[in-house]
Amino acid sequence: MTAIALIGAGRMAKVHVASILAAGAHIATIYDPVAQAAQDLAAQTRAKSCSTAKEAMDDPSVDAIVIATSSDTHIALLYEAVEADKPVLCEKPLSSSFQKGVQFIETIGEQAARKIFIGFNRRFDRGHAAVRQGVHANQIGNLEQLMITSRDPYPPPLEYIPRSGGLFRDMMIHDFDMARSIVNRPIISVTAHGSSIIDPNIGALGDIDTANVTMLTDNGVIINIINSRRCAFGFDQRIEAFGSAGMLVSDNPRQSGFTVYNKENPGTPAPILEFFMERYLSSYTAEIHQFIQCARGGVDMPIHAIDGIMAAYLAEAATASLKQGKTINLTHLQQEF
Amino acid sequence: MTAIALIGAGRMAKVHVASILAAGAHIATIYDPVAQAAQDLAAQTRAKSCSTAKEAMDDPSVDAIVIATSSDTHIALLYEAVEADKPVLCEKPLSSSFQKGVQFIETIGEQAARKIFIGFNRRFDRGHAAVRQGVHANQIGNLEQLMITSRDPYPPPLEYIPRSGGLFRDMMIHDFDMARSIVNRPIISVTAHGSSIIDPNIGALGDIDTANVTMLTDNGVIINIINSRRCAFGFDQRIEAFGSAGMLVSDNPRQSGFTVYNKENPGTPAPILEFFMERYLSSYTAEIHQFIQCARGGVDMPIHAIDGIMAAYLAEAATASLKQGKTINLTHLQQEF
Amino acid sequence: MTAIALIGAGRMAKVHVASILAAGAHIATIYDPVAQAAQDLAAQTRAKSCSTAKEAMDDPSVDAIVIATSSDTHIALLYEAVEADKPVLCEKPLSSSFQKGVQFIETIGEQAARKIFIGFNRRFDRGHAAVRQGVHANQIGNLEQLMITSRDPYPPPLEYIPRSGGLFRDMMIHDFDMARSIVNRPIISVTAHGSSIIDPNIGALGDIDTANVTMLTDNGVIINIINSRRCAFGFDQRIEAFGSAGMLVSDNPRQSGFTVYNKENPGTPAPILEFFMERYLSSYTAEIHQFIQCARGGVDMPIHAIDGIMAAYLAEAATASLKQGKTINLTHLQQEF
Amino acid sequence: MTAIALIGAGRMAKVHVASILAAGAHIATIYDPVAQAAQDLAAQTRAKSCSTAKEAMDDPSVDAIVIATSSDTHIALLYEAVEADKPVLCEKPLSSSFQKGVQFIETIGEQAARKIFIGFNRRFDRGHAAVRQGVHANQIGNLEQLMITSRDPYPPPLEYIPRSGGLFRDMMIHDFDMARSIVNRPIISVTAHGSSIIDPNIGALGDIDTANVTMLTDNGVIINIINSRRCAFGFDQRIEAFGSAGMLVSDNPRQSGFTVYNKENPGTPAPILEFFMERYLSSYTAEIHQFIQCARGGVDMPIHAIDGIMAAYLAEAATASLKQGKTINLTHLQQEF
Repeated sequence: MTAIALIGAGRMAKVHVASILAAGAHIATIYDPVAQAAQDLAAQTRAKSCSTAKEAMDDPSVDAIVIATSSDTHIALLYEAVEADKPVLCEKPLSSSFQKGVQFIETIGEQAARKIFIGFNRRFDRGHAAVRQGVHANQIGNLEQLMITSRDPYPPPLEYIPRSGGLFRDMMIHDFDMARSIVNRPIISVTAHGSSIIDPNIGALGDIDTANVTMLTDNGVIINIINSRRCAFGFDQRIEAFGSAGMLVSDNPRQSGFTVYNKENPGTPAPILEFFMERYLSSYTAEIHQFIQCARGGVDMPIHAIDGIMAAYLAEAATASLKQGKTINLTHLQQEF
Repeated sequence: MTAIALIGAGRMAKVHVASILAAGAHIATIYDPVAQAAQDLAAQTRAKSCSTAKEAMDDPSVDAIVIATSSDTHIALLYEAVEADKPVLCEKPLSSSFQKGVQFIETIGEQAARKIFIGFNRRFDRGHAAVRQGVHANQIGNLEQLMITSRDPYPPPLEYIPRSGGLFRDMMIHDFDMARSIVNRPIISVTAHGSSIIDPNIGALGDIDTANVTMLTDNGVIINIINSRRCAFGFDQRIEAFGSAGMLVSDNPRQSGFTVYNKENPGTPAPILEFFMERYLSSYTAEIHQFIQCARGGVDMPIHAIDGIMAAYLAEAATASLKQGKTINLTHLQQEF
Repeated sequence: MTAIALIGAGRMAKVHVASILAAGAHIATIYDPVAQAAQDLAAQTRAKSCSTAKEAMDDPSVDAIVIATSSDTHIALLYEAVEADKPVLCEKPLSSSFQKGVQFIETIGEQAARKIFIGFNRRFDRGHAAVRQGVHANQIGNLEQLMITSRDPYPPPLEYIPRSGGLFRDMMIHDFDMARSIVNRPIISVTAHGSSIIDPNIGALGDIDTANVTMLTDNGVIINIINSRRCAFGFDQRIEAFGSAGMLVSDNPRQSGFTVYNKENPGTPAPILEFFMERYLSSYTAEIHQFIQCARGGVDMPIHAIDGIMAAYLAEAATASLKQGKTINLTHLQQEF
Repeated sequence: MTAIALIGAGRMAKVHVASILAAGAHIATIYDPVAQAAQDLAAQTRAKSCSTAKEAMDDPSVDAIVIATSSDTHIALLYEAVEADKPVLCEKPLSSSFQKGVQFIETIGEQAARKIFIGFNRRFDRGHAAVRQGVHANQIGNLEQLMITSRDPYPPPLEYIPRSGGLFRDMMIHDFDMARSIVNRPIISVTAHGSSIIDPNIGALGDIDTANVTMLTDNGVIINIINSRRCAFGFDQRIEAFGSAGMLVSDNPRQSGFTVYNKENPGTPAPILEFFMERYLSSYTAEIHQFIQCARGGVDMPIHAIDGIMAAYLAEAATASLKQGKTINLTHLQQEF
């Protein structure tokens, strides 16, 4: 039975606990900067509470590491995990600083980078995954256009905006990764548009709340990503992949098959799933399952540290495009990795 | 923390284990006629393995009882549970013999019968529950017509047919209960039609594989239930409630929001959920949650032993109607309970 | 260019005028008991206004006859049309008296009866026709169950009820014909249930407003027809054909592809088509097209007088079943025709 | 009864004939460069065949003019129509040369321009119109994002490409007009991306077959238009308007409510309408109705010559953006009109 060192004992860590157990693994050690949180979760899971991350990771009983702490701690913990030389799953982002992320990859090398599973959990959404698999299995012939829509039900608190890194790094990062995983080709240009039409206070803080990014691949596929920080009808997460032989769509699943017919509502369906913990809960579980399988097999991760840095690179390019009001042509990093 | 005596250690018992833990309860004792099964599940759940059901139920640490054994053992175990004087959830059916079920209720009395939760888990299906609640909340004015469709993906093994009690008792029993819970009025007649059009071998065994039952309530609501033992596209479970102000529908939920568009498939959706463990898994969990809440509060169960006997009564009437080729008018039991 | 004698100049006749012209035919003569109505429509269509139906039908320029007068005049006009020896389309019903209809067929003989097109226009609904064609083309293997739902948006005026012949003859007649055209097998029993739950005044007049009829074919197919005289969300007209290899559904088409998403409406579609002139307008056109093609070719009609009498026969049986509270077994007429 | 001069006797003219008659108007005069075509259509409609457009327009019996000739003749005929001083409907485009179109408007003046109905018939599509009306009626609060998808079932013949003016002027022109009619605000920038991924021969001719245009309004609304010259599943014409209070969608209507369920197709709907004469036929009729109403009332047209030039202006800007690889900021024409 695979033994996990769990770094973090907060909300995200608790989500992972259930999935780890369901995957037939168990939690051997726990570390959290807040000692009490670590001790409580350790008691509940019959794990050992450790006083440092290193202790939790290095414990000889531990087979694999899961990092579920706040974004700014990821990079330092990942250096320790690489040293521990054990498979590691780290919640996205790889690093809240793009430069430090690049430096990290350059330091550890490509081979080590491929052993680090980055938690872009949306790749494991059943509908989204079916689109990706269908494109790769040639179900729609040659891919020609890819549209990704991501809208949150409501904006984050205003005080979060300044430390979010901006919409492209904080929110669209998931869509950049999804786009990359579907097109499977080098992206050669990024053009961003945005506005703060939902809340001018977001604009006053130098950020946007509504965005549209168009990207081109080297073989002429047009990618278009739409983001909004607010959506009146819930968590709007859709993909449309269009190709020479057809189209694959991942639409929002609904809470049930319930439908109302009356004078005003001639067939109103049940609401869509409200937010990410409802929509993507099963994705987190699928992600952990796959991580543990990879850890057991000692194989490369399906989403690894280089994917993390590439998504961040597209976010950097979009940020620059918006600021400069022009298309950014990509070459450098694409060649390197 | 509510402590459960789990009677049974087979597949259904294991389904309940996860729900019990998720509901914040724990398993204190386990009994199964196969001692090894009880011991294994006890080890896994850190429960005490008992050598008799009575021992498991009577253990002073136990707050509530869950019976998940084979149908023919239910009635005997329920007598023991009533003696133990603790809240009990028993998988449907109450009894595989209708007469013994009636006798049981008459013996223990109505008050005790209301403390026994009968596991008609489909009542907890999110879509079906929304229809029932909508009807009761007057969302469609006066109910006028109720249509229930239940089709299994494939027939049971032929050797099961003789001991199934027939389609009405074995399969439509769920729909009889669902109909009762929605109309909430006395049912005054039952007319059954059936044929063995799927497999003549089923007909040769004296049973049917395709059925249609029409029932009337005392206030003129027409209920129609359709059953089929085979369905090429999966587990077809739908409800349509029609009233003076509109219609409520519970349609089959799908595996995801994935849809394919191509020359032959101009919008083919993802498959519906395959069978009951996929469709009704969340219903089992919701059922256990509600049972534990009721057990804690010492309140009446939302589906109790009298509901179990009433559903069985409708199955008896349908069986008689089919045999006699005429409408059966109901009076006796309706007045009694 | 096929020349038509149009008997009737009222609403239904005017609906047919546009379809006749669109089918590349023209109207040669018109008769209506109200002379002014005939003259006005004749002026508009450059046709000859006649003072008797016989004159209009016998005119040597006339190739085919369309009867679109009130139900009680059909049978007399049909005798004249048979005498004129020209192809004739007659709006349903063949006769408002079942006995006179039977007598008519016996008088003219089967060969003549097959030259009379009965206007069961719903057979030409694009969705309904696709279900029928799919069943006949073996798209769902062996047919096992057939469900037809027909609900009008609102009841007819109360004063119409006594001369309507009752719900089965007036409203469900369309569904009896549809069922026959899909199952394509002898129907051996009819069981009717009904109530006047919408309007007790309808009950006081000896009729019902809500009905459920179950029929069996000789090979065990179960047919279920649901009717309601009122439907809050419009004209609810659906078919579900279920067989060994799948299911074909004809659902209500909508006014457009418009859908609203907001807090209360997470995907509310456009209304369904309101009533028969909106839902079945294109069916009337398709019906006239086919009639004119048959008239030109001198071939048998796809729906002829015997179909008219058979649908009426099922309505008689349902009326008897409801009255007698029992299943009616059919034998006589089925063998005759 | 409004009398129409019909300029043109080809396919588009014939489509309009039925709508003109259905709108209660009649055709008084017809002109076509091909005299025989004019004479044939005149015979069929009992109209007068004229030897010049001027003769047809100036006929004193004529109340209004419909121009349905090839694109390159529009501007010359419009000068004649303005001289005739009668309301005129002209099929889009106003002019195949943008400069000549601008010159035309400057010559005739704004007041005369508003009497010219430009046939952007898609505005009259029932679903698309519902989106526009909903946005204007504040059904989704403030508009924030607008997505328009237009995909043709198959590309035009290669020989058409060089004289098409390019995808933006030939195909996306409809979407530019639709976007303007919905946002109802000045558009301040246009950014175009495109590729010839469907057919490299289209690229060799200097055109594209796949396009994405992003536009911004002065108040921060982001518009995104997607075009493709080929679509495996038919004529894909959709709109999605997203705002502070919800979303309005116009999806592709289907041929019927028919749906297939089997092992491979768990709910495959009927095909979408195949191409523009199927999808937009009712739009043409609605357009003619509205034109005749405006002509009768002597009021301004809902889509007039200035709209024609503005849509063409956006096509010019998109063409420039694609060529120059940069965002085009719009100022000049927006202020002028």
